[in-house]
Amino acid sequence: MLKIALAQLNPTIGDLAGNGERILAVAEQAVANQVDLLLTPELSICGYPPRDLLLNASFQAAMADRLQSLAQQLPAQLAVLVGLATIAQPPGKPLHNSVALLHDGQVQQVFHKQLLPTYDVFDENRYFQPGESSNHFQIGDYRVGVTICEDLWNDEEFWGKQQYLVNPIAELARQSVDLVVNLSASPYSVGKQQLREAMLQHTARRYQQPIVYVNQVGANDDLIFDGGSIGCDRQGQIICRSQSFHADLSIVNFDGDCLRDLSPTTLAPAVEESSAIWQALVLGVGDYARKCGFQQALLGLSGGIDSALVAAIAVQALGAEKVLGVLMPSPYSSEHSVTDALAVARNLGIETQTIPIGGLMQQFDLALEPMFAGTEFGIAEENLQSRIRGGLLMAIANKFGHLLLSTGNKSEMAVGYCTLYGDMNGGLAAIADLPKTKVYDLCRWLNREREVIPVNIITKPPSAELRPGQLDQDSLPPYEVLDAILEGLVCDHLSVADLVERGFAAATVQRVAQLLRRAEFKRRQAPPGLKITDRAFGTGWRMPIASSVP
Amino acid sequence: MLKIALAQLNPTIGDLAGNGERILAVAEQAVANQVDLLLTPELSICGYPPRDLLLNASFQAAMADRLQSLAQQLPAQLAVLVGLATIAQPPGKPLHNSVALLHDGQVQQVFHKQLLPTYDVFDENRYFQPGESSNHFQIGDYRVGVTICEDLWNDEEFWGKQQYLVNPIAELARQSVDLVVNLSASPYSVGKQQLREAMLQHTARRYQQPIVYVNQVGANDDLIFDGGSIGCDRQGQIICRSQSFHADLSIVNFDGDCLRDLSPTTLAPAVEESSAIWQALVLGVGDYARKCGFQQALLGLSGGIDSALVAAIAVQALGAEKVLGVLMPSPYSSEHSVTDALAVARNLGIETQTIPIGGLMQQFDLALEPMFAGTEFGIAEENLQSRIRGGLLMAIANKFGHLLLSTGNKSEMAVGYCTLYGDMNGGLAAIADLPKTKVYDLCRWLNREREVIPVNIITKPPSAELRPGQLDQDSLPPYEVLDAILEGLVCDHLSVADLVERGFAAATVQRVAQLLRRAEFKRRQAPPGLKITDRAFGTGWRMPIASSVP
Repeated sequence: MLKIALAQLNPTIGDLAGNGERILAVAEQAVANQVDLLLTPELSICGYPPRDLLLNASFQAAMADRLQSLAQQLPAQLAVLVGLATIAQPPGKPLHNSVALLHDGQVQQVFHKQLLPTYDVFDENRYFQPGESSNHFQIGDYRVGVTICEDLWNDEEFWGKQQYLVNPIAELARQSVDLVVNLSASPYSVGKQQLREAMLQHTARRYQQPIVYVNQVGANDDLIFDGGSIGCDRQGQIICRSQSFHADLSIVNFDGDCLRDLSPTTLAPAVEESSAIWQALVLGVGDYARKCGFQQALLGLSGGIDSALVAAIAVQALGAEKVLGVLMPSPYSSEHSVTDALAVARNLGIETQTIPIGGLMQQFDLALEPMFAGTEFGIAEENLQSRIRGGLLMAIANKFGHLLLSTGNKSEMAVGYCTLYGDMNGGLAAIADLPKTKVYDLCRWLNREREVIPVNIITKPPSAELRPGQLDQDSLPPYEVLDAILEGLVCDHLSVADLVERGFAAATVQRVAQLLRRAEFKRRQAPPGLKITDRAFGTGWRMPIASSVP
Repeated sequence: MLKIALAQLNPTIGDLAGNGERILAVAEQAVANQVDLLLTPELSICGYPPRDLLLNASFQAAMADRLQSLAQQLPAQLAVLVGLATIAQPPGKPLHNSVALLHDGQVQQVFHKQLLPTYDVFDENRYFQPGESSNHFQIGDYRVGVTICEDLWNDEEFWGKQQYLVNPIAELARQSVDLVVNLSASPYSVGKQQLREAMLQHTARRYQQPIVYVNQVGANDDLIFDGGSIGCDRQGQIICRSQSFHADLSIVNFDGDCLRDLSPTTLAPAVEESSAIWQALVLGVGDYARKCGFQQALLGLSGGIDSALVAAIAVQALGAEKVLGVLMPSPYSSEHSVTDALAVARNLGIETQTIPIGGLMQQFDLALEPMFAGTEFGIAEENLQSRIRGGLLMAIANKFGHLLLSTGNKSEMAVGYCTLYGDMNGGLAAIADLPKTKVYDLCRWLNREREVIPVNIITKPPSAELRPGQLDQDSLPPYEVLDAILEGLVCDHLSVADLVERGFAAATVQRVAQLLRRAEFKRRQAPPGLKITDRAFGTGWRMPIASSVP
């Protein structure tokens, strides 16, 4: 029998010392539980994704040093798999994405990732040379196959297509390993855990191979890693599941002689969609603040639904006493915008400050009067209000060292219904990947037991309140329609013609497509936004600005 | 004999109709000159780099359609090589980076790029499956080898190392082609043309193979393509060279029976470094404005050297009457800052507007007084001045539909000596990849015949003038030292220890390294900056923000 621990760790990118300490701490726990083999996530020594830090020779050397010191510091009786980048032989890329087996005070073996994701937010071909051989090691009576994240994601039967030439799992099955382990850093998106589990179950059954899968947890900039590590037996039963969105240590026994080769069953509950999105965003905000060294956050409270939701997320992540809401009413602000904003603060128990901006608007008008005389009130004047607010928020952030959270949603970011250097200001865009219709859904879910988001904020028609009587729906299609069109254009790579064929009005789709393209320059300058879908604006969205599309 | 035309084209990304028209137009010229074979740059139908436009099925289909219509529209007697992405067979990436041979009204052959750059600004493994076979075609008595950009860049003798397993040029030599053509989109960086020529000469001599190399010209967002297409005979002599930084059509004869197989010699003059940087930046600003549809540009004129240089670039790119300089003096502004800014405008012949910001500063102080009472004047107040100016500039840009140019240099962007949502504001950062010391060099070069940049601006000590008596050198090392350290940290991937070993003061290097890391969140939100070095902040700089580096 082999006792295996799944250490679902939350590393800080580049923090080789701290990440190593985390590994040593769970190793102690593992030893206390008579564990034989400890698994950590992909690149557990440096954290995933290390991005261009990998290009620095000193960083490469420091990783190698940390590996040696870990080998010596870890309990000798415990076999430990840790992830790091190692030097590759030319020709090709300078590094491998590797896993090292540490045991008896030494580095025993080093394995290399074979399938390197290079799509969406992943750039692994930028840094890594693929491993060319199948990876396994012997521990006690068992032969354990080692795979790294994407190595598991090429089951052509499951996907209906083959993404890479090689399937490392099939190769390991041919080599008759007793067990496959997978060290992962797989970011969260809506429905991802169900997908992972279905895929693992399929592959385990297909190859009659138990799979123990350890995922990274924690957020790094725009990417939220949800954990949810899994042990799946050879019959395709999920036997153990670690918590989602929290660091965790799960232990499972492997006995190759049993029909049920993994035991006992210890399942953290599956998380339903709204709860998962909520926990993802809370983790995203909390980890960004903590890993950047911010103690407190602030945001503009407009009385609208977006800022109300972001305030609630920030309070859950940091604590009510660490969040400041700033009200900045203008002469165009409705009375309910102020009362609703104050109601949000009251419900959440956060401090507010109110800074009316009428005087500043007048002063800007005065400053620009010589140039603007005779022109109509328009976008320039609307944006000015937003930029005054953005400037005030940044002044407060700078003065007190707080993290400014921006509050724009994905629908706005898509069509440019947001002001660059205004409401887009912030260190992190908490809900930038949440379409407006999902913002409403999440707020209703939040209110399932008690009113967190004031009901009036959910029921009133959305408005930017940048001119008298303005409503979002005056200049945009209804959000249900807008979000459906955007889903097609952004997530599904569809064309205007495709969407018209699916029944959307041609003029509406064309207008949305044009707004989407024209807002590219704004998105390029947006803060990192927490990614929760398969296609988020941000590091995985790489569009030209100066372009002309057929 | 084979008469070959090198069409150095300036495509707009995604503009399949317009780019096709450009190809048809040069084909007419070629036919008028009895040309047999017309070469266009890499991906000449869609422009390079098309980035994530490639992921849209409708865009893929539209490229294929455009290829067919071009085949029919082009003069039948002319053989033409055009570049486009074509569908690849699974498994693997969905596309090839291809070249099609059009002749006699049909697509005769399609060739695929074998070496796919995936480093710096290049993401080709994200989209493309490598071609697996060597490419050539027969025209008249000659066998012509076809390569695409990077295919040429793996001569291990020249580089001292092998980057890829395959060397397509060596393979073509084994297949005894008479001539190698290369369709490229190779972006400019300082010294790049000399490097290209040296490499071509080496490879031509080594394989006794004439090479005709056609490069894209024109700027697309941050990337400036400099053209400089080349014909190099089998003895390694550069026989023809197209203009740098301008669309061009060169014609060269190939006769395999002659010792000198390419003729006649037609060499556009080589461009020296300062002139090349200047022309690159002018092209970068001009093309960004034109391809985005801007008629006019504006910028803040501070009286400092950065904005003076950007104004001069804008005037050269767009014309003096299309550039507006805005002076926004504060109570901390020196008298010379206003007179120097006006002198810039006078030298360049541009219109200015002056908007004093003292009233706005007071109004912000008033608005923030309840929160800031009892605190010291500091970074928050300094940034406010910059943000007031940034807000005014954007208001003018929005009102009149002008392009705002930001004026920060690479040294500032590196250490964060710039204000996010303030002086960083703009659609394009014209000199963001030019270190401060190079800003001075370029201004002195500009003044070589007459005073363009007022001399006082070059000789006075630089200052942000955000507090009384402030000088850059109060908070930063001298720019000569700073830029040398940054060159090591940013471009050469060196560590603090490496630089200390090279003689820099440890405390200074540590401080610069820390400033560099801490400014990552600002750079993430910076506008696209014109790239002129091998390592620019921007699309090729991918650093984590929330990180902790050893």
